[in-house]
Amino acid sequence: MAKKSDPAFAIGVDYGTNSVRALIVDIADGREVAAHVFDYPSGEAGILLDPKDPHTARQNPADYIEGFYKSVSHAVKAAASDPTFRPERVVGIGVDTTGSTPIPVDRSGQPLALSPEFGKELAAHAWLWKDHTGHAEAAEITEKAKKVRDKYLDKCGGTYSSEWYWSKLLHCKRSAPKVFKAAYSWVELADFVPAYITGNLNPDTLPRGICAAGHKAMFHEAWGGLPSTKFLSSLDPALAAIRDHYAPHAMTSDQKAGSLTAEVAARVGLPAGIAVAVGAFDAHMGAVGAGIKAGTLVKIIGTSTCDMMVAPMDSGLPDIPGLCGIVPGSVVPGMYGLEAGQSAVGDIFNWFVKTLAPAQYGSEGDAHVGLTRDAAKLRPGASGLVALDWNNGNRTILVDPLLSGLLVGQTLHTTAAEIYRTLVEATAFGALTIINRFEEYGVKVKEVVNCGGIAEKNPMVMQIYADVCNRPMKISRSAQTCALGAAIFGAVASGAYKSVEAAQKKMTGVKETVYKPAKSAASVYAELYRVYRTLHDAFGTASGKPQLHGVMKDLIAIRDTARRGAG
Amino acid sequence: MAKKSDPAFAIGVDYGTNSVRALIVDIADGREVAAHVFDYPSGEAGILLDPKDPHTARQNPADYIEGFYKSVSHAVKAAASDPTFRPERVVGIGVDTTGSTPIPVDRSGQPLALSPEFGKELAAHAWLWKDHTGHAEAAEITEKAKKVRDKYLDKCGGTYSSEWYWSKLLHCKRSAPKVFKAAYSWVELADFVPAYITGNLNPDTLPRGICAAGHKAMFHEAWGGLPSTKFLSSLDPALAAIRDHYAPHAMTSDQKAGSLTAEVAARVGLPAGIAVAVGAFDAHMGAVGAGIKAGTLVKIIGTSTCDMMVAPMDSGLPDIPGLCGIVPGSVVPGMYGLEAGQSAVGDIFNWFVKTLAPAQYGSEGDAHVGLTRDAAKLRPGASGLVALDWNNGNRTILVDPLLSGLLVGQTLHTTAAEIYRTLVEATAFGALTIINRFEEYGVKVKEVVNCGGIAEKNPMVMQIYADVCNRPMKISRSAQTCALGAAIFGAVASGAYKSVEAAQKKMTGVKETVYKPAKSAASVYAELYRVYRTLHDAFGTASGKPQLHGVMKDLIAIRDTARRGAG
Repeated sequence: MAKKSDPAFAIGVDYGTNSVRALIVDIADGREVAAHVFDYPSGEAGILLDPKDPHTARQNPADYIEGFYKSVSHAVKAAASDPTFRPERVVGIGVDTTGSTPIPVDRSGQPLALSPEFGKELAAHAWLWKDHTGHAEAAEITEKAKKVRDKYLDKCGGTYSSEWYWSKLLHCKRSAPKVFKAAYSWVELADFVPAYITGNLNPDTLPRGICAAGHKAMFHEAWGGLPSTKFLSSLDPALAAIRDHYAPHAMTSDQKAGSLTAEVAARVGLPAGIAVAVGAFDAHMGAVGAGIKAGTLVKIIGTSTCDMMVAPMDSGLPDIPGLCGIVPGSVVPGMYGLEAGQSAVGDIFNWFVKTLAPAQYGSEGDAHVGLTRDAAKLRPGASGLVALDWNNGNRTILVDPLLSGLLVGQTLHTTAAEIYRTLVEATAFGALTIINRFEEYGVKVKEVVNCGGIAEKNPMVMQIYADVCNRPMKISRSAQTCALGAAIFGAVASGAYKSVEAAQKKMTGVKETVYKPAKSAASVYAELYRVYRTLHDAFGTASGKPQLHGVMKDLIAIRDTARRGAG
Repeated sequence: MAKKSDPAFAIGVDYGTNSVRALIVDIADGREVAAHVFDYPSGEAGILLDPKDPHTARQNPADYIEGFYKSVSHAVKAAASDPTFRPERVVGIGVDTTGSTPIPVDRSGQPLALSPEFGKELAAHAWLWKDHTGHAEAAEITEKAKKVRDKYLDKCGGTYSSEWYWSKLLHCKRSAPKVFKAAYSWVELADFVPAYITGNLNPDTLPRGICAAGHKAMFHEAWGGLPSTKFLSSLDPALAAIRDHYAPHAMTSDQKAGSLTAEVAARVGLPAGIAVAVGAFDAHMGAVGAGIKAGTLVKIIGTSTCDMMVAPMDSGLPDIPGLCGIVPGSVVPGMYGLEAGQSAVGDIFNWFVKTLAPAQYGSEGDAHVGLTRDAAKLRPGASGLVALDWNNGNRTILVDPLLSGLLVGQTLHTTAAEIYRTLVEATAFGALTIINRFEEYGVKVKEVVNCGGIAEKNPMVMQIYADVCNRPMKISRSAQTCALGAAIFGAVASGAYKSVEAAQKKMTGVKETVYKPAKSAASVYAELYRVYRTLHDAFGTASGKPQLHGVMKDLIAIRDTARRGAG
């Protein structure tokens, strides 16, 4: 056992969409000692696709297990070069994952996909957060939930999403009934990993985190946990059994899920018995790693975004339409966790680069750099283009997966860099729409802290966000915010800190560089945002009779003004 | 002089957007003996651009002159390999060009751009048809013309275009007054070339073709030629002088503009004195080369399209809103010539390939082939995409240059080939909109004959046109229809045929291959056309309150049905 004055470490294990990252930090100050990233080997960049249905996105649970062993063991090895590090000085492990990413499991908690019978069955794999195959079921759940006494949807924005737990289960029941029948329960990835490494896979008892349960499975104390048997049976009688195979209480991530088993510990080079925190979603732990507190919006910008806020429990918070969830304790124990998000951000840029970057920009990695360089030279409004950032549907504020991308304003001279910049701007407009929605309902956004690779590496994107939102954009000090947040929860669950806030004070911060809005750019973007909002409301809402005849003409006028400005 | 039984030849000289082509044909049967294409050396593919204004498109008149010498002399040389050809057996020359492409000239008829003073002045060059810098002036002309007694706009669709003569002159007066002041007159390229090669450049007397005058300069016998001095003065007093420096009668292209001068003849290897027909626009002569007659729609598909029909003078033809022109004798002397068109077709495909074809498709030429190959494998509707074909504005039926491109329905899995196909479909929807407009006003479209490189070389495009329009698509026998049409007019002007119809009977025809609509594709495209038309009317017209909330959802439903069909 380490002496009290010896340095102590925590490990955060962050399961992203394409890879898993293990990060070892010094809990005294958040110093990052070592990290290792493991790319999921299955499918296309870790995702199992169905060419017949672009809504399908599954993952192989074997990748998660191998990913834990590989990422943690390599990180531990790498940490050996730090003179203060010893494996026995690791006090806690935290795990964050994508979600809602439910995995069908058998009676013993083993993923069905790992059995010979279901190994080739796509439906028996993990249903990745961005799988939208259950969009019809989501609509049905929304419709039925609106009719019952318990207001299941009030805490998740009024619309149930195809990305969430019950939509996926119900769609599996209907499209792959054999798989559904073989599944004793469905376990969120965020719960599965802590359960696996602490040796408690029993679906009836394994700790279920409030984050996944509350934000995605309509779990709330107001109605005693998961939705009622009656309600679930109204969707499908088979769903009711799932409720019975689920812990009756959901836990916050400052609590211990269990201790690292000897078997797992041996394979990663750590001692057995290390405290493992209850799991939560990447964005939620990331928000903690980025220093979230009341008034701070944390944007985790990756393939998609999560936009997180917290609010005091006594703040009389109203239900906010379009938000993904308002859940007590889901981010910081003792506060409401508020989650919004954009269904695709980095994914849109990646799609463009992979699909439409012309040869002159070289390979995919080079093309991001080259397009960013050329796009950065352009003036706001000068392309005459505007886009909707809905290539993967809209999460907040429309909560509608049956939306798609739109680009308007192209001429015969429109360049790839102009389109690339327009897509960046579109995601910034989507970000602004979320900020506006928080504030419309009284949740004041006093500062914005961004994290994720894009925030870290792409000053052009951050400057556009500052100009579009007309607010300073801060960047989280850590480049690995989600993993850092997971490590913080590991430290708190171990008892090394008495609260998340106490750990945050020591272990988090923002960078010195702050992107400040430029006045002239902000004023052009205010005009473009009106065009964006016209299109947003016209294509995204059933109410109103939009006047679109002005859209192209407005864009041309904005463009001509912007270009004259360049003269 | 050749004996009557000897073969006789005519030369068609076709000035396109990027190059000029000379074609030598046997007038007995239209057999093509030799051809030569000369690419304009100036600017970008022959076009002088202004990076500050994508509406700008100018050309160097020197390219036209050099282009005549180079294309004709090389064609004559190449024809020497034909045992029946002799230069002295050439009886006539016809010239067709893009338009409205007016050139500012001095008192002697010399283009200002060829003088040292104005050589570097963009405004002193030829104003290419697709120059849209005069869009504000076009709107002003439309507005003022609607208020006067003479119904100047009734014969050109009700809206004056920024592509046309007076918009360009008025914009020059306002944006480059020095150039305008130095210009004694403005001569259409279609009139300039015959004037140049027959040695009659005097702006006051050089033959002005009815095609350019009637379709673009509001010339009509009903009001005694060009619009009145009073009307032109109301736009700008300086415009009135242009009317004074313009022949009072416009001529049809079955008439002789003059005879080839000795000097020009010597430089191209022909005898002096050959009959030169009055010039006309490429599409109009092309329609003749494609065998236009009552009931036949001829589509000249190139960078843009012209869609031509003719109607008997006694058919009681109404004015048709949105058409570019209804002019007696402009296509076939003695019939109304009706012109419609799409502002960009091949230009859109080229723009996409040049700007957005990913590296895997190789160079620009290869990318057209590869994208066509992959796009041809796709099922109608399966991409979930629809586009508006307005990257260069909309000529028919909206007559609005202040419109732009639109693409909707993209996901994170949308491929370059899907977008390429969608752009092809968009141009087909634009084509169908024109067919519908003709028929709405009683001009029955009994057959469609396509010509131009795309019709010739791209069966996928033609099959999509057949499926979208739900009509057979025929292809003109000649691959060089415009040049053939010009040669026909050369032959008629020389007196070798007594009428255009008589020459057409001998010299034109269609290919055996006819693209027939497939029932299942036509039915999917009928659904997609409804979506296209919803977007068309929403973004293109001020009337109506569009309901766009269904657009993306309809596209997804169509896509899902199409993909299930593929299972």
